[in-house]
Amino acid sequence: MTMLDLDREATAVTHIGEEDLPALARGCAVLGTGGGGSVDTGLLLAGRAVRECGEVPLVQLADLEDDAVVVPLSGIGAPTVSHEMVASSDDVLRLRDEVERVMDRPVAAVMSSEIGGSNGVAPVAWAARLGVPLVDADGMGRAFPEVQMVSMYVAGLPVNAVVLSDVVGNVSTLRPIDGLWSERLARALCVASGAHALMADYILLASEARGAVIEGSVSRALGIGRCTVGATDPLASLIAELGARNLISGKIVDIDRRTGGGFVRGSVVLEGVGDDRGRLLRLEIQNENLLALEDGKVLASVPDLITVVDTQTGGAISTESLRYGQRVTVLAWPCDPLWRTPRGLDVAGPKAFGYDIDYVPVEEISGAHA
Amino acid sequence: MTMLDLDREATAVTHIGEEDLPALARGCAVLGTGGGGSVDTGLLLAGRAVRECGEVPLVQLADLEDDAVVVPLSGIGAPTVSHEMVASSDDVLRLRDEVERVMDRPVAAVMSSEIGGSNGVAPVAWAARLGVPLVDADGMGRAFPEVQMVSMYVAGLPVNAVVLSDVVGNVSTLRPIDGLWSERLARALCVASGAHALMADYILLASEARGAVIEGSVSRALGIGRCTVGATDPLASLIAELGARNLISGKIVDIDRRTGGGFVRGSVVLEGVGDDRGRLLRLEIQNENLLALEDGKVLASVPDLITVVDTQTGGAISTESLRYGQRVTVLAWPCDPLWRTPRGLDVAGPKAFGYDIDYVPVEEISGAHA
Repeated sequence: MTMLDLDREATAVTHIGEEDLPALARGCAVLGTGGGGSVDTGLLLAGRAVRECGEVPLVQLADLEDDAVVVPLSGIGAPTVSHEMVASSDDVLRLRDEVERVMDRPVAAVMSSEIGGSNGVAPVAWAARLGVPLVDADGMGRAFPEVQMVSMYVAGLPVNAVVLSDVVGNVSTLRPIDGLWSERLARALCVASGAHALMADYILLASEARGAVIEGSVSRALGIGRCTVGATDPLASLIAELGARNLISGKIVDIDRRTGGGFVRGSVVLEGVGDDRGRLLRLEIQNENLLALEDGKVLASVPDLITVVDTQTGGAISTESLRYGQRVTVLAWPCDPLWRTPRGLDVAGPKAFGYDIDYVPVEEISGAHA
Repeated sequence: MTMLDLDREATAVTHIGEEDLPALARGCAVLGTGGGGSVDTGLLLAGRAVRECGEVPLVQLADLEDDAVVVPLSGIGAPTVSHEMVASSDDVLRLRDEVERVMDRPVAAVMSSEIGGSNGVAPVAWAARLGVPLVDADGMGRAFPEVQMVSMYVAGLPVNAVVLSDVVGNVSTLRPIDGLWSERLARALCVASGAHALMADYILLASEARGAVIEGSVSRALGIGRCTVGATDPLASLIAELGARNLISGKIVDIDRRTGGGFVRGSVVLEGVGDDRGRLLRLEIQNENLLALEDGKVLASVPDLITVVDTQTGGAISTESLRYGQRVTVLAWPCDPLWRTPRGLDVAGPKAFGYDIDYVPVEEISGAHA
């Protein structure tokens, strides 16, 4: 039961098949801004699910009836654990059953909570297992490290129920008073279950999702992943596709990276090469790339997107994969306008990460290549 | 809506009023076998609730219709926190709302999960706030430290839902695969909420409760609490009421008590006085008094009840209140037969607490006063 509006279904519905997954993964890696977990895990899950259960319809919010239940899904926990834990295909079925009990109606579609990293790819697997479409939208337009950093929270939707399903078979429903308690309680349960769980957060009706989620995210990830295929200059193609600024092309000359408080934190220094010879750029990191600095001046900051890519191939490099001597290019481009509202900046602006700086949109900062 | 069977209601229903609470608290302290939390907190909560909301009907399971929803309630967390945390009267209302959502029918009655200690007294407050009767039964017939150590688990009832409500306003529903996961997940949430929460575990219908709970617990606690009032020899009255053995009367000469792994553990040594001069008795403790040993010989062990009382007044002394030099008497008496089944001993026998000894019923052990 997909609850598609049949009148609108006359317009062609795109499907995501196995051949689309590598491009989706490449795009999600770029949108992960260094975090969001390695896309390899999501790619394995999605490939197997699509082979076993068939292609997944990719639908727009407008294709869904107003009262269709949309379930935003993500993995929560430590990527180091989810990498090594044998994936279950039952956890999503148990989660669906609990969501339907809580909402008292069938699940109509799955949505990515965050399109960046592995959590952008794995929803294809979850939708395939449930036999429902994937909505072409997500809650971040990128990756962020904490549960409350989603567009539905910024839009002021009430927190209703957070449902977690672990590989052991436990299913839990939280009704937290706000997004910060969502994070605190969900994290505690996830740790008790072995540091990994599947989570549905901000379960909503299609009518509530309009304006409160970031639409077109899956198509955008596919477009980003496809733009470099067969390109003579992959980096130039990627920059054009993203509408990005090239902050620097250089090599990594210093990495200070440590794991603490459940996050990877640190900084990376790049020395320019070619046209950028003589310049030094520093990236500040908390799972994701948060700030790009040159001579103490901010060139780009969260919530705008900052991604490190391989200068030759244009492939994104996640923070844990950065190595001394790599030849890389740092790209930055505007976030979704929702993150630039006062409430959006409260939730995920520089100050939300402890940096005492005012946010300036990346396209208004001079000094980088246009 | 109490769902009382009106035909049976013709028989007089007992009510618990403010004047009954001190006796209930004394009885619950004795049944707490040293643990279960100080009854003072429960007494304050219950007194205020009864003054504000009226007396609480005390009903038997047989008085309830088969499909009446009975909610076993307890506080979970560190007694050191619940002592100092300002009590809320809303948490039980929020919990009731969630239980009714989960069960899809109204709550008919409240039951103590454990009759020992504060958790035996506070349910009077919760029943008063909800305007429902208190069932004359509990899930332990005493106090035990862990969530799965309840009669409903021993009886093999399926774990359905565990509902937690904290003072912040968060409400959570767990559907764990078994009782051990109930403990693990509920404990994690409770810690995340500040180490104290109100918990409904093994929510059941009256028809399911019969044979799976320990009936008459509240009446028994009231009887124990009343037997010493005005008695010329309170200790003798208490021993007669309990059908207990007097293991030793003496004074405390050594206390080794430490807090670790979320529990109070340790041992206490008593030196006999009067008829018991020359004897030494050692108690092993994990929140509750678990073992009484003399010259390496077990005189009584969990799940039988072992309580330390003031030799003069017969008042129970909890493990955290034991002091060097106190004149005390150690009493032991048989647990509910349910705990002596193979599954009962698996769940709460000596081996469940890490003691490599076989359980022998206290009345079959020679060497103590009959």
